[in-house]
Amino acid sequence: MKIILVGFGVIGKGVLKAITSKKDYLKDKYGMDLKVVAICDRSGSAIDDNGLNLETALKIKEETGKIANYPEKGTDLSIIETIQTVEADAIIEITPTNIETGAPANTYMLEAFKNGKHVITANKGPLAVNFKELIDCANENSKLFRFEASVGGAMPIINLANDALAGNEIFEIKGILNGTTNYILSKMETEGLDFDTVLKEAQELGIAETNPHQDISGLDTAAKIVILANSLMNKNVSIKDVKLEGITRITPEAIAMANKSGYTIKLIGEVSNDKLEVGPKLIPIDDPMNVKGSLNVAMLNTDLAKEVAVVGRGAGDIETASAILSDIIYIYENNIKWNR
Amino acid sequence: MKIILVGFGVIGKGVLKAITSKKDYLKDKYGMDLKVVAICDRSGSAIDDNGLNLETALKIKEETGKIANYPEKGTDLSIIETIQTVEADAIIEITPTNIETGAPANTYMLEAFKNGKHVITANKGPLAVNFKELIDCANENSKLFRFEASVGGAMPIINLANDALAGNEIFEIKGILNGTTNYILSKMETEGLDFDTVLKEAQELGIAETNPHQDISGLDTAAKIVILANSLMNKNVSIKDVKLEGITRITPEAIAMANKSGYTIKLIGEVSNDKLEVGPKLIPIDDPMNVKGSLNVAMLNTDLAKEVAVVGRGAGDIETASAILSDIIYIYENNIKWNR
Repeated sequence: MKIILVGFGVIGKGVLKAITSKKDYLKDKYGMDLKVVAICDRSGSAIDDNGLNLETALKIKEETGKIANYPEKGTDLSIIETIQTVEADAIIEITPTNIETGAPANTYMLEAFKNGKHVITANKGPLAVNFKELIDCANENSKLFRFEASVGGAMPIINLANDALAGNEIFEIKGILNGTTNYILSKMETEGLDFDTVLKEAQELGIAETNPHQDISGLDTAAKIVILANSLMNKNVSIKDVKLEGITRITPEAIAMANKSGYTIKLIGEVSNDKLEVGPKLIPIDDPMNVKGSLNVAMLNTDLAKEVAVVGRGAGDIETASAILSDIIYIYENNIKWNR
Repeated sequence: MKIILVGFGVIGKGVLKAITSKKDYLKDKYGMDLKVVAICDRSGSAIDDNGLNLETALKIKEETGKIANYPEKGTDLSIIETIQTVEADAIIEITPTNIETGAPANTYMLEAFKNGKHVITANKGPLAVNFKELIDCANENSKLFRFEASVGGAMPIINLANDALAGNEIFEIKGILNGTTNYILSKMETEGLDFDTVLKEAQELGIAETNPHQDISGLDTAAKIVILANSLMNKNVSIKDVKLEGITRITPEAIAMANKSGYTIKLIGEVSNDKLEVGPKLIPIDDPMNVKGSLNVAMLNTDLAKEVAVVGRGAGDIETASAILSDIIYIYENNIKWNR
């Protein structure tokens, strides 16, 4: 199986490390010979039909910041040109996300489908903005479109719903889909500190970003609940349709008061037939949704299995790489293996 | 896709109801034309290569207790003879379980593999006793072996680990794998009642069996942790290897005392490299493992995704049918579709 890595930041490096450490495992368990035939970043592309040396790629990127400097095989080919001209089974699209326009990642994905390549992505933007166009394009070109890593990192909510619960109709999804805000609320609860203090601490620890707006406003959660609504419940909604409230007005006193009645406060994203919202909600202390720290959780309500919940780590490079790896294996097992 | 239903009790009826209600859905979403070409019980078999009428089958069974009375297509062919002679893609094996010998279900499964049929089962016995023989036989005959319904009912632990978390190595599995004991412990906790009182009440409600030994001794949980150990962690263990303690000695006072320190008491099955045990354990009140009523939960510890937990209903005819349906879809999508 030949793949092109589109984007080479923190997640891209995590993917290469995971692939390297799992090379023998993939061969033994699935008979899969996985080759990275191209890696693109803003500087250009490294291309080798026999498979790039991943250690060299990681080293060059670390030392020079540019994959175009890869010895001999480095080129100034753009991402689009690489997708169009390099022969591969799938692209792994992990460029920076833009949750307002989805650009330019959506173009990369459409171009991949049109050029006969499956797409795996961790990119929320295009999924939240252009889902219908992308899935239609995948179907027209008979290609697979997998995006487990876009929601909940290593919490396997999408593949759980699509595969492990195949045959079930999903009526409702709700969950904690943002690790940063869950970390902040958990910390406010256990230490009685106010929002600003905990946010500042989280920024110093690298848990919250310098510009935390997308997380604390609920926008990131909104993008994710839109992705789940469109991909698992056949809806056609966008972020603008989400009733949105963030966590900036939550006080430690409010959480302490909730605790006294046996509840905690969590930022919950929710979609059902008559609901699409993100906001702080009271959750019983002993409810499966009361997960701590930066954990994510999602609860599905279905016709046959009824309630099913899944809990996992929402972020981290290796955790996200885990989700991408499960998508690589899915594509290999469901398509590549049978067409060789 | 043609299937043979081997066993026609509560779960078998649930499967037929689920298949009937999902007929159009399976056609639209997967292009699957699902036919039940034979149904077997102790009385014999009903066989129709064009697909049996499932309403008629359910009615005959309800009214006479014997599928052999199915109009015109009823026969006195035994289960083994039916598996050997009826052309089908897969059998769904749901005869009563024997967790000591696995018989006679293990013979049905081996016979199915040898006759070129995939196997789906909900049957703990053969999996706990004969797993290696069964999986080897499946592999030798290039057939798929799926058993999601054998552990945790509608809680999709096995397919979650195998498919949604594909690529991960699993270091540890622990969980609440028996709904009856979780119901009893939860009820003792919330109402302060003693074990015998709650057990009697659960028996009257049909939640506990007349002979509750397998549940309350931890044996049922032991069978399930053995299945998970062998199928997800490549172990080769049996129930005899499990360090076993049940819940009969737990008092409401012990639970109240645990509560005071922020804990609850749950019957936990656990496997890791140096542990294989079932027994009552202290679990923090706000831990994802503290699930109430008859819910089941399983926590996986893996190399890439780290901790992932899944919560779901451990029993119920339609819930179990959901697990079987996901296995039917898996076999169709991964094999049947490509070989036609």
